Amino acid sequence: MFDTVSEADFKSAMKNLAAGVTLITSVSRTQRGGMTATAVCSLSAAPAQLVVCVNRQNATHQMIMESRKFCVNVLAADQSEVAHRFSNPHARTERFEHGQWSVLKTGAPVLMDALVAFDCELGEAIDSGTHSIFVGRVIGVHAQEQCSPLLYYRSGYAGITAHA
Amino acid sequence: MFDTVSEADFKSAMKNLAAGVTLITSVSRTQRGGMTATAVCSLSAAPAQLVVCVNRQNATHQMIMESRKFCVNVLAADQSEVAHRFSNPHARTERFEHGQWSVLKTGAPVLMDALVAFDCELGEAIDSGTHSIFVGRVIGVHAQEQCSPLLYYRSGYAGITAHA
Repeated sequence: MFDTVSEADFKSAMKNLAAGVTLITSVSRTQRGGMTATAVCSLSAAPAQLVVCVNRQNATHQMIMESRKFCVNVLAADQSEVAHRFSNPHARTERFEHGQWSVLKTGAPVLMDALVAFDCELGEAIDSGTHSIFVGRVIGVHAQEQCSPLLYYRSGYAGITAHA
Repeated sequence: MFDTVSEADFKSAMKNLAAGVTLITSVSRTQRGGMTATAVCSLSAAPAQLVVCVNRQNATHQMIMESRKFCVNVLAADQSEVAHRFSNPHARTERFEHGQWSVLKTGAPVLMDALVAFDCELGEAIDSGTHSIFVGRVIGVHAQEQCSPLLYYRSGYAGITAHA
């Protein structure tokens, strides 16, 4: 078994993987929480499942483990401000003050003007070093779709363009 | 526990999650194989790990299980043709005929003019219905970086644009 590459080399290389920007939200008792994330991907369509990778130090990780519910809100191109708010540790109290928030089935916060939202029950939770892989069983979706996506690439937000 | 949403609803909603396009390649004995995939995300930086979700029916799945090695080649904007070739079941024999292919540490095929390539040893393999979640321990990277990424969004290829 070889050693893995250094943290610096991995981070530098991973910047080249463009991804849609999401907010992963959860609720525990009456407290809402969430984080900005790009480590989200489809797992299977039948059953409808997705995967998110979350740092175990993140407050949202604990909230998901306790409540076993979360929502993946895929952001639209004009929502970089909310993405920034959910990644700024100093803006915790303001996170849910802007935007139209609701719930679907689980009770996890759903941003109604997100591009699409996946309301999930937690399936498997696989610990792997600093992070956990959470499998989300998708039990509700809310799609808005009248806009283009917000992307993250090389440490900055970006938009999409039709392919030349 | 609620039922998951229908396969059609999930697929329709998941089209809104834009993602970088990759080729996941592997090698078993002397045979090379690969598939086009967007279900790839970062897991942790220390150790350097990523996650890919692969359909168990796909020939590449079996190759990865046997060899316990694979490479994630992140494609550049001008590589939609190779993406198409690796997703076309009728073009199997032509897949490695175009482009500059090499290897890093594992021996899995590396597309040298990809945006970036992650050479991986298979860590955990978690079965989940029709698909497996493969954890890749990244033991080598090859970055080219002199270009922009190829994206997949709403069933078509797309490019990236600086955020307005």
